[in-house]
Amino acid sequence: MLQACFDPEMLAEITIQPVRRHGVDAAILFSDIVVPLKAAGVDIDIVAGTGPVAAEPVRSRADVEALPELEPEQVRPITDGVRLLTEQLGETPLIGFAGAPFTLASYLIEGGPSKNHERTKALMHSEPEVWHALAGSLARTTLTFLRAQLDAGVDAVQLFDSWAGALSVKDYRTFVLPHSAAVLDGVADYGVPRIHFGVGTGELLPDMREAGADVVGVDWRLPLDEAARRLTVPGKPAPVVQGNLDPALLFASWPVVEAEVRRIVTEGRAAGGHIFNLGHGVLPNTDPEVLTRVVELVHSL
Amino acid sequence: MLQACFDPEMLAEITIQPVRRHGVDAAILFSDIVVPLKAAGVDIDIVAGTGPVAAEPVRSRADVEALPELEPEQVRPITDGVRLLTEQLGETPLIGFAGAPFTLASYLIEGGPSKNHERTKALMHSEPEVWHALAGSLARTTLTFLRAQLDAGVDAVQLFDSWAGALSVKDYRTFVLPHSAAVLDGVADYGVPRIHFGVGTGELLPDMREAGADVVGVDWRLPLDEAARRLTVPGKPAPVVQGNLDPALLFASWPVVEAEVRRIVTEGRAAGGHIFNLGHGVLPNTDPEVLTRVVELVHSL
Repeated sequence: MLQACFDPEMLAEITIQPVRRHGVDAAILFSDIVVPLKAAGVDIDIVAGTGPVAAEPVRSRADVEALPELEPEQVRPITDGVRLLTEQLGETPLIGFAGAPFTLASYLIEGGPSKNHERTKALMHSEPEVWHALAGSLARTTLTFLRAQLDAGVDAVQLFDSWAGALSVKDYRTFVLPHSAAVLDGVADYGVPRIHFGVGTGELLPDMREAGADVVGVDWRLPLDEAARRLTVPGKPAPVVQGNLDPALLFASWPVVEAEVRRIVTEGRAAGGHIFNLGHGVLPNTDPEVLTRVVELVHSL
Repeated sequence: MLQACFDPEMLAEITIQPVRRHGVDAAILFSDIVVPLKAAGVDIDIVAGTGPVAAEPVRSRADVEALPELEPEQVRPITDGVRLLTEQLGETPLIGFAGAPFTLASYLIEGGPSKNHERTKALMHSEPEVWHALAGSLARTTLTFLRAQLDAGVDAVQLFDSWAGALSVKDYRTFVLPHSAAVLDGVADYGVPRIHFGVGTGELLPDMREAGADVVGVDWRLPLDEAARRLTVPGKPAPVVQGNLDPALLFASWPVVEAEVRRIVTEGRAAGGHIFNLGHGVLPNTDPEVLTRVVELVHSL
């Protein structure tokens, strides 16, 4: 998996496959959340059946100080892949990808995927200076990664904070928002759409927008009109929402999927701006034929 | 684990331990969500490192029709345990325990623990009659289990819908609420407090109350005042909330834990009625000494 992320031709091929097969309107760079860490020299690997595992968890000020930060030339294989892709994709836009500081930090502090993030939350609260030093370092690495992708030609960026839904609003605002904002603000000068993605983040939507997002991901737990209401800031441009289709529902019969797609498109229109998407990643064992039919249906509406 | 749930003396001993060790104000019956299914004769077992696994997943109308429903005498070891406990606990109240129909159904349909509940959601939507037959059967089994506990002397009941937070409000109202309401309404004649527990259910709080709960669990994602606001129904008694302490924070330093406990007690008082508790179960590797200190602190406030 990580090997493919660092092989420009493989990376381009995997990224372009959904466009070729399903006719989606944009490609999203094939990558993994730990790619910039691996590129910077962190000893981290993806273990089959587990996920990213860090050889040395980062839990002290000394650990943070020893953490390398990314230099743009270290992600050359990825930016080479982006250049190949922009040629091959033609008019189809390419969305850049990076994991957000909180989600990256959780992998490093816990040493791998975590359900409860107990060491991460304990560190945030018990040693806030160490936390902020770590999250600040990760924000710089993430920013470097996204700027490298933008310099290579991506048309938009998506910041994935996969685990942010585990946090209270108060903790998100105190410990996470400033670092995600540093990343999103740090790419503002490119003038491209900035998408901020999370799952189970209904309570955090206003804060995820405040961090500097032009588009905010919404899973299936919240109707789009309510999401748009939470994202509305007086005097600012209307919010754009992305997502809303429950990936689990792709396992239902086609009439069910069709009704869901139609409902979401209708509600998305009423919400103002909406980018049709799943509310989370495609689940293993999803019938790819259903994905093709969903794209066709959305295009017909 | 399941053996202990069916051994009255072991059950009583494990249930009473937190009261003896930490001085909590009530005991909650030690059990597992699949106990009533196992008692009714369903071939289900708890596999170490995985959780409950059903030998034959339930996915068709024939499967549902073949599913046994619980008879009160089948949970005699549990009710014997309850009788032992009410003697040993003296003035300390005992809270009965059962899993809610949706969470039970997910185990049976998926065949084990599931992160995305894709087969469960697909069945709900694709074959709603089969879904409602299954959830109705599970609601009857759950009701029988709780009534048996109440007849044996528990002072309150808690209905655990551990996974309800995976659902949209619309799906919860259509597919789940009627069945959880059948359980909670079905014990109303005992006149004891009915606690309805979920995690990540901030959007579902009004519906979880509407199902017939006197007390609704709130995890750490939502402040108690906002939870109470969502739970308020004009013309009905003020809502009572339970929970709010993030179990991950028990891994932080004591001053952090103390500040969190004080904040929650203060906010709980402002919310009207509040039962201090964790927002989810105690995590493995939690220092039990911290739990004792938390209980002492709450009692001192």
